[in-house]
Amino acid sequence: MKTYEIAVVHGDGIGREVCQSALSVIQALPGLTDAFTFKEYPAGADEYLRSGSAFPDATYEGCRRADAILHGATGIPGVTYPDGTETGIEFGLQLRFRLDLYANIRPIKLRPGIQSKLRDRKPGDIDYVIVRENTEGLYAARGNGVNLRDEMAADTLVVTRKGIERICRTAFELSRRRSGAPGDGKRRVTVCDKANVLRTYAFFRKVFNEVAEQYPDVEADYAYADAMTCHLVERPEHYDVIVTENMFGDIISDLAAVTVGSMGMSPSAEIGKEHGFFQAAHGSAPTIAGQNIANPYGTILSGAAMLEWLGERHGDQRLLLAAAAVERGVSAAMRSPHGLTRDLGGAARTSDITELVIGNLLPAA
Amino acid sequence: MKTYEIAVVHGDGIGREVCQSALSVIQALPGLTDAFTFKEYPAGADEYLRSGSAFPDATYEGCRRADAILHGATGIPGVTYPDGTETGIEFGLQLRFRLDLYANIRPIKLRPGIQSKLRDRKPGDIDYVIVRENTEGLYAARGNGVNLRDEMAADTLVVTRKGIERICRTAFELSRRRSGAPGDGKRRVTVCDKANVLRTYAFFRKVFNEVAEQYPDVEADYAYADAMTCHLVERPEHYDVIVTENMFGDIISDLAAVTVGSMGMSPSAEIGKEHGFFQAAHGSAPTIAGQNIANPYGTILSGAAMLEWLGERHGDQRLLLAAAAVERGVSAAMRSPHGLTRDLGGAARTSDITELVIGNLLPAA
Ligand SMILES: CC(C)[C@H](C(=O)O)[C@@H](O)C(=O)O
Ligand SMILES: CC(C)[C@H](C(=O)O)[C@@H](O)C(=O)O
Repeated sequence: MKTYEIAVVHGDGIGREVCQSALSVIQALPGLTDAFTFKEYPAGADEYLRSGSAFPDATYEGCRRADAILHGATGIPGVTYPDGTETGIEFGLQLRFRLDLYANIRPIKLRPGIQSKLRDRKPGDIDYVIVRENTEGLYAARGNGVNLRDEMAADTLVVTRKGIERICRTAFELSRRRSGAPGDGKRRVTVCDKANVLRTYAFFRKVFNEVAEQYPDVEADYAYADAMTCHLVERPEHYDVIVTENMFGDIISDLAAVTVGSMGMSPSAEIGKEHGFFQAAHGSAPTIAGQNIANPYGTILSGAAMLEWLGERHGDQRLLLAAAAVERGVSAAMRSPHGLTRDLGGAARTSDITELVIGNLLPAA
Repeated sequence: MKTYEIAVVHGDGIGREVCQSALSVIQALPGLTDAFTFKEYPAGADEYLRSGSAFPDATYEGCRRADAILHGATGIPGVTYPDGTETGIEFGLQLRFRLDLYANIRPIKLRPGIQSKLRDRKPGDIDYVIVRENTEGLYAARGNGVNLRDEMAADTLVVTRKGIERICRTAFELSRRRSGAPGDGKRRVTVCDKANVLRTYAFFRKVFNEVAEQYPDVEADYAYADAMTCHLVERPEHYDVIVTENMFGDIISDLAAVTVGSMGMSPSAEIGKEHGFFQAAHGSAPTIAGQNIANPYGTILSGAAMLEWLGERHGDQRLLLAAAAVERGVSAAMRSPHGLTRDLGGAARTSDITELVIGNLLPAA
């Protein structure tokens, strides 16, 4: 049986706690003791302070070689480069570009036991996936922007036909594999842009429409990014799959996460042709680090996404079952009276959640 | 007594209905029958189809000459330039640049009678102002972006020291005039950026900090744009004044509007040294146009902001009283069982709201 090598990058702030939580869950999966080897690599702001590099070459090599990468979170405000941007996040951002992880998949689902921060929303109402383009857009400017004598600064948003095509295809394929939007059961891909104002977004929409023609069974739907934030609050049941440029994807996926509980809820899978990178969509939250109070659900669910991706890629049934077991553990934990962290209105600690999930990986005998 | 010339631009979609509603309210103000002359000018997508220009020169001249400009909304998806962007919005966007309306002021307030779309939020919990930079940022690329043979497209986000300084000063001055954040009464200006990722936003934050030093009595506060969307949902009571780049301001102000009722709620004042332009923050909503169901509160409140701005600028006490009267009318209308449009969970029509507000401009005798 194949053994999978997982590169583990804890990172900064709450990164270590939430990553450790997900690892403990995976290591507790029955019958999979020999399925994984875990190799830890440093990255982030602390590593930058220690070694002068937030993303050491050895970490890159380890990630490139691994079968999958699991990450906590990186970044500490104030630990910056001369241009003022953060050092720690270099790891996650560069990895996207260097491993061409073009599809950032962020499922948004309101689960039983969790109270939405929106009025009158119940489990079942919210169930969609944000597909964030991950290798171009405004983020392509990172490190390449201009700052002229502190008199002006400029960053360029770039999109390419190839980049838009592949991310839109990912979105339409994903919609085909789903059962549709909760409100009306329709398969629907919504493009979120500002095509009304800017050429880049108008081009994004144009290519989206070209791809959409190849998927006549899936409805093509449109929202401007500003209105999108309203829709995610007012009619989340309308959405099935949302596809969008990098920066807009960053913004709306955090908003979406609070509509299904809190920032800590939403897992993320960053996928390319050859590599898969898994981390929660939230940041490193340094103000609550080390207190054992961070919400680990997003990272645990990212771990489940990793198992599923590996299982499909290698045709390994064990891992698909394992992913389902983690999902089951999370669902049970969330429905338990002790399964809510502070951000969800409860008093559970990070380690309590880990134990609850582990205790519920298998159906009660 | 001075007579003020108001340029009125109805625009497209629901623009005419909501603008007419605000005008009717202003014209009903007792004792001000001779205070205004209203001059109507065409602009928008319909005008583009009619005359070939979405923003005729005569409209620009009329706006430039007027004492203030009142606008409904413009834009119709599908009525586009060859590059795919919308024609109709040309008016509002160009006016910002041509009249140097650098400060886009968007007050967000949960008022009695209105149910927040957030769980457990009551009037008094949400009361802050978004100060959106209105003349640079990603919007500076409008019309200037590149599209190379439909293979790639690029738009450049530009910020300048002068632009950042003046908008940050506007924000800090505004905070000084307010009574602080509802949660803790603190005067606080929060900069919303992505300083962690991009040079432009890091520069924005740097200049923000320089300006902040001149306001030691106001707390300087920070949020990344993605996390900001969570905060506006999870702890809106923390915010007093938020200052941000053009595109982020566009996005978060729509989100903020639904937290205090619906997209139709939030007024906006776009102010430069010489000119003031008033319109609701929402778009032209062509799908519900002409049905007398649009929510006119945002535009009516924008009209009140116009009266206040004119009153302060010209030291005209009448107009300050008039602005207060419109505020009173709106508050009373919102508390009435018949004061809610469909988007707010009621059945009132646009014209019902207009009448309710007019009927409540003066305290009951
Ligand atoms: C940490 C940060 C650089 C990152 C981003 O902006 O993409 C995060 O917010 C995310 O969504 O993955
Ligand atoms: C109509 C549109 C061009 C405009 C914008 O994007 O600025 C609107 O959304 C706004 O917020 O004023």
